[in-house]
Amino acid sequence: MPTPANRQILLAETPKDKLGPEHFRMIESALPAPKDGEVLLRVRYISLDAANRAWMQGATYREAVVGGSVMAGGAVAEVVESKAPNLAPGDLVFADTGWQDYAALPAKRLVKLPRVEPMTHLLSVYGIAGLTAYFGLLNIAEPKAGETVVVSAAAGSVGSLVGQIAKIKGCRVVGIAGGAQKCNWLTQELGFDAAVDYKTGNLFKTIKEAAPGGIDVYFDNVGGDILEACLFLMNTGGRISCCGAISAYDRAAPAAGPRGVPGLIVVKRLTMKGFIVTDFFAERDKAIADLAAWVAAGKLKVEEDVIAGLENTPAALIGLLAGENRGKRMVKVA
Amino acid sequence: MPTPANRQILLAETPKDKLGPEHFRMIESALPAPKDGEVLLRVRYISLDAANRAWMQGATYREAVVGGSVMAGGAVAEVVESKAPNLAPGDLVFADTGWQDYAALPAKRLVKLPRVEPMTHLLSVYGIAGLTAYFGLLNIAEPKAGETVVVSAAAGSVGSLVGQIAKIKGCRVVGIAGGAQKCNWLTQELGFDAAVDYKTGNLFKTIKEAAPGGIDVYFDNVGGDILEACLFLMNTGGRISCCGAISAYDRAAPAAGPRGVPGLIVVKRLTMKGFIVTDFFAERDKAIADLAAWVAAGKLKVEEDVIAGLENTPAALIGLLAGENRGKRMVKVA
Repeated sequence: MPTPANRQILLAETPKDKLGPEHFRMIESALPAPKDGEVLLRVRYISLDAANRAWMQGATYREAVVGGSVMAGGAVAEVVESKAPNLAPGDLVFADTGWQDYAALPAKRLVKLPRVEPMTHLLSVYGIAGLTAYFGLLNIAEPKAGETVVVSAAAGSVGSLVGQIAKIKGCRVVGIAGGAQKCNWLTQELGFDAAVDYKTGNLFKTIKEAAPGGIDVYFDNVGGDILEACLFLMNTGGRISCCGAISAYDRAAPAAGPRGVPGLIVVKRLTMKGFIVTDFFAERDKAIADLAAWVAAGKLKVEEDVIAGLENTPAALIGLLAGENRGKRMVKVA
Repeated sequence: MPTPANRQILLAETPKDKLGPEHFRMIESALPAPKDGEVLLRVRYISLDAANRAWMQGATYREAVVGGSVMAGGAVAEVVESKAPNLAPGDLVFADTGWQDYAALPAKRLVKLPRVEPMTHLLSVYGIAGLTAYFGLLNIAEPKAGETVVVSAAAGSVGSLVGQIAKIKGCRVVGIAGGAQKCNWLTQELGFDAAVDYKTGNLFKTIKEAAPGGIDVYFDNVGGDILEACLFLMNTGGRISCCGAISAYDRAAPAAGPRGVPGLIVVKRLTMKGFIVTDFFAERDKAIADLAAWVAAGKLKVEEDVIAGLENTPAALIGLLAGENRGKRMVKVA
């Protein structure tokens, strides 16, 4: 039996503006061999996230992905060969495998995962998306029952969970998303109280109509104009959970910041707080237990958008940045 | 003996752009008569603050000051006639008397003050300025020994105290102020580790030189370009205490916000938090005790800039907005 080749997708060059297929290149390499303390992993599902694009712009919470290297990306992968204690063939792990069929990685950089059905939930509700929604809403913004929570990119992997968790906590929830179809889905399927289509009308007016009592918590996935509009609608003592800035990722230079900073922060005594999900991993077990209980009770609907084939990963990311997905987008590699 | 007249300074009209003497008008009115539950106050010292200008722009934490009414302002005042229990002639109070010689106000809107020497300290270190510095630094930003604290408007009433309190807490302190004279004063008289003159050179470069290890805490009195430069220099987990936005007060419309919002807040996991000093008044006694102990020990130098004469109050505020004061500016009325 011939050794299988390892298909790898490289970031061919760093995009200066909008990301396109021309920035990627697929090559075939030899299967990597694990060294002592390492394991050979078969990549199963690759997670796609807006942050992938931010990594190309420079150092973030991880070092920048530079042109010519395998595109970075988190994945659920299966151990096929182990030279590390505590890991055996068949074990599932979460790892930054990058966009490829196989990866050999040190065991200490892997997080062992349980087998759950469906396996894709390990990347959505029990993965970074679910934990980001959970901690970013509950630990950073601390919403109280009766408060109004607004979330942007509400039909995305994180936003769709944020809104549902806020509902579970007794809040009034407004989602901001692109297009009538996504907005209908938020209110009719996920139980949001209202949805705003950011592609039509004046943002300030449409959000104000959907949140007539003002905003107590804004979960910000996008930055830019939507953040600016929400700042002007925040109530005194409001909290903004700064999760991402999608609007700024797929473009050349950082835009000007929102008007109202810092004036409205002072006058309304707002808190804007950034976070990274790993800050809260000490509380991970409790979060997973809560999420699983809500899923089991039918209170948390998990939407997934699974695209088949490693070769389609670049297009899947480009499409995600254009907002074509609903729920958690991932690529099934094997 | 003829009844003394009450000189009153009105905000003649709401400024649309830069504040000037033409926006004020002085009139003489009859002495007000206190009703039941009220006291007649002789205004002694009027506090001047950048926030006075912000009140003219619209509702803040207080309602807007509208054209034609007595200009609002906090003051130390002395009771001359009382129709309220618990207050007697000779008692000192802090009150929003407005810019006038006398005011009749309900006792419940007054805060009784102790007699201290000099009385002016009631408006500086033991007044709003001192408490704002204390709570805004310690409760909002929570600086730790060894951290780098940067403060803007550092030669002002709040900033000069913020920097000294941060030094007392073991921090490395950088002050940003306008002009070599103020900068020298910060380092040579107040013990700041470094000072940056925002009027010369590239802000980002000069602040970076003064804070080569990055910024852990930025106490922001000004907003605008200085906030933007500091955002790019913040360390991971840094905190920005949003105290004021002087740069935006004396102009027509809110400027664009700083670049880096929200991108840098996300990536560096920053917290930006606005506050109002009254949020912390439950802890006021402890704060005053700490401040008094530091003053007594010579660790906290109190700089005051006292201008004589009610009629000079408009010019004193206009000058404060232009940055001509050092330390706490106030007007001695009587």
